[in-house]
Amino acid sequence: MSIPSRSSLSRRRVLGGVTGVAGCIAVAEQAVASGLADVPPRVPGGPLGLTSPRSQYVHIGRVPESTPGKRPVDPSDAINSKTPLHNLLGTITPADQHYERSHAGVPNIDPTEHRLLVHGMAQRNLVLTMDDLHAMPSTSRIGFVECTGNGWENWKTASPDLTVQQTHGLISTNEWTGVPLSFLIDLVGVDPRSTWMLAEGGDGAAVARSIPLTDEIMAEAILAYGQNGEPLRPAHGFPLRLFMPGFEGNLNIKWLRRLKFGDRPFMTRWETARYTQLQANGKARQFQLRQEVNSVITAPSGTMKIRRGYNPVTGLAWSGHGRIIRVEVSTDGAKTWTDALINMPALPKAQTRFSTHWVWDGKPTKIVSRSTDEKGNVQPDRATFIQATGTNALFHYNAQQTWAIDDNGAVRNVLS
Amino acid sequence: MSIPSRSSLSRRRVLGGVTGVAGCIAVAEQAVASGLADVPPRVPGGPLGLTSPRSQYVHIGRVPESTPGKRPVDPSDAINSKTPLHNLLGTITPADQHYERSHAGVPNIDPTEHRLLVHGMAQRNLVLTMDDLHAMPSTSRIGFVECTGNGWENWKTASPDLTVQQTHGLISTNEWTGVPLSFLIDLVGVDPRSTWMLAEGGDGAAVARSIPLTDEIMAEAILAYGQNGEPLRPAHGFPLRLFMPGFEGNLNIKWLRRLKFGDRPFMTRWETARYTQLQANGKARQFQLRQEVNSVITAPSGTMKIRRGYNPVTGLAWSGHGRIIRVEVSTDGAKTWTDALINMPALPKAQTRFSTHWVWDGKPTKIVSRSTDEKGNVQPDRATFIQATGTNALFHYNAQQTWAIDDNGAVRNVLS
Repeated sequence: MSIPSRSSLSRRRVLGGVTGVAGCIAVAEQAVASGLADVPPRVPGGPLGLTSPRSQYVHIGRVPESTPGKRPVDPSDAINSKTPLHNLLGTITPADQHYERSHAGVPNIDPTEHRLLVHGMAQRNLVLTMDDLHAMPSTSRIGFVECTGNGWENWKTASPDLTVQQTHGLISTNEWTGVPLSFLIDLVGVDPRSTWMLAEGGDGAAVARSIPLTDEIMAEAILAYGQNGEPLRPAHGFPLRLFMPGFEGNLNIKWLRRLKFGDRPFMTRWETARYTQLQANGKARQFQLRQEVNSVITAPSGTMKIRRGYNPVTGLAWSGHGRIIRVEVSTDGAKTWTDALINMPALPKAQTRFSTHWVWDGKPTKIVSRSTDEKGNVQPDRATFIQATGTNALFHYNAQQTWAIDDNGAVRNVLS
Repeated sequence: MSIPSRSSLSRRRVLGGVTGVAGCIAVAEQAVASGLADVPPRVPGGPLGLTSPRSQYVHIGRVPESTPGKRPVDPSDAINSKTPLHNLLGTITPADQHYERSHAGVPNIDPTEHRLLVHGMAQRNLVLTMDDLHAMPSTSRIGFVECTGNGWENWKTASPDLTVQQTHGLISTNEWTGVPLSFLIDLVGVDPRSTWMLAEGGDGAAVARSIPLTDEIMAEAILAYGQNGEPLRPAHGFPLRLFMPGFEGNLNIKWLRRLKFGDRPFMTRWETARYTQLQANGKARQFQLRQEVNSVITAPSGTMKIRRGYNPVTGLAWSGHGRIIRVEVSTDGAKTWTDALINMPALPKAQTRFSTHWVWDGKPTKIVSRSTDEKGNVQPDRATFIQATGTNALFHYNAQQTWAIDDNGAVRNVLS
């Protein structure tokens, strides 16, 4: 665990910015003298229940469209539901706050009726029930699922009033549990000449993607039925989904009902009409599947307001290539950088929490983060990213996110 | 990640026990021929919401008292609420299923009114608001909280109809986020001669414990305000609790309102009248704070029924000393043992999922698990445990858990 050392922060800076040493001590002395008179008296609490509900004082909302007067995330439809990164702590996303992106709504599937068909280039075809799958060997892994469109709002222009939920809320990290794909591949005896797998969902849209059977994917993919310790929630694929560590969200097929093995990609509409990248030269790029190294400061972030003096700075970093090994933060518009603390364990292909602090002098400036993964990939600045990819594309945006601070401490979304 | 190798399980065994190869293939061939006619047709799904609720088909209940006709967990009062380990997957406990144990109910605290008093042998006394704490450096850690009474139901006699929720449900694993204790110690300038810290809760009972300021505790303890990515739930200490990795649950003071530093233990009623251990010789042992190496098979477990042939076996292991490095499973009443698979990463002082499989021949037998941690501690069998501790005590029971299988496949709780 990466605990700040005793000397890593100046006490004076913290107290100077937060409450003021003199104020703190005065209040404390009074409280001690009066027996902590300023704290409400203790009272008997309420009874235990079937579950532990949230506090009435906690408000975390996943869907920005629910906030009156705010710009909807996606005006053309209401099929996105973004995770409120600015309200979350640590790295795990509560299951009910995991982002949603679906193409035909959320089916309500009876698990006793659900079947998984496994067929194609294999020694045998199988139809499996959920009971069959639950009886197989299982594994668990903490990792992120990220929509390939995460960040698209800043590709061309940046609306200054966007929150981090709106710019980066299409990513969530859960613990996923289920059957290793490798076990199923053995079970049906996939033909060694089979290099691709079709995965098809049981939703109305029957989202289907071709997945290359690389060593990495065969070692890491999971047919998941569990999420954060409990069965999947319907919005996240109940009763069965693919979990594809490090790869774009739409490969993590929800409501999974079919796997087919073949020796070439299946060219579904989801990899021809959708989820291809229009490059600067006008040609489309297919099968750009991996999510790149990325990071964002979640506090301070868009629409927040900061105070002069000490400010904690925290955010999330992640990479589809593996572990995050470094996060740097700049508070002077990317001129100078300092290393942030990284919370251990920094798990591969999982969101990783970083934090640092900053004494703001009250002058307008820009703050930005930059992450590095264990493969040596460094998150690009926006100019470098646009130079490489152009402005025709929509997916896999991973440029550094800049937040501008004005002289009132208001935080706004800017391109760089 | 510990993925079973392709040869780790015989296909024939799995299919033989689950559906039968012939049956599978027949169904599959029919399904493929008819276009998967046995699967309900796809329909448009429901809309996205503010949260992702559980499926109507999922039933996980935390409180066994809620099941009509079942023996209550603790007839003398209803202050325990146990985690349904048999219904959970992976290692993370959903926040609303985290076990509850309180001494004066669940207070409903307004975080803007809450204060933390820090005083005693330190350079300065402080009264901190939640805003102050949120502005300090933060860290996160995944780890278990376990009631020191977990397992007490099997200390003297074993009721055969107990579930694993009833025998071992007073443990849960969450990601905890908050301020490192070490930072606060620096902030107030704790006197180097201070070797103990009093932590007091804001519930009606004002639960208070003395905590030794060891290097380990100063490096690892967290003043937590976050749980599984969101603010603490009221039942788990909102707005602030101690998280004490590896140490008994009641040290993880909920609704934390006071820390006092001193040079000796404070001898509260919680460490004199309660939470001491009556040893075999009639003397009481104080400050037995660490949770020992432990494990339990969660499936098959008490009141379940198994079928002849292939059965998956899974469970959880944990230790207050550090990481779990080995879990062995016996299916012949502790005569012979085989290593189970351990899901990676096996985090220190966190529940760790293990799994293996077993072909049951239909004869009565007993199954049991045994864990080993990185410090070399091995979970004792019951005879060894009782020999060492006697039968006067009530806390820190960590003997191996045995489940008996009768010739009908019914699983029952037994002492060994």
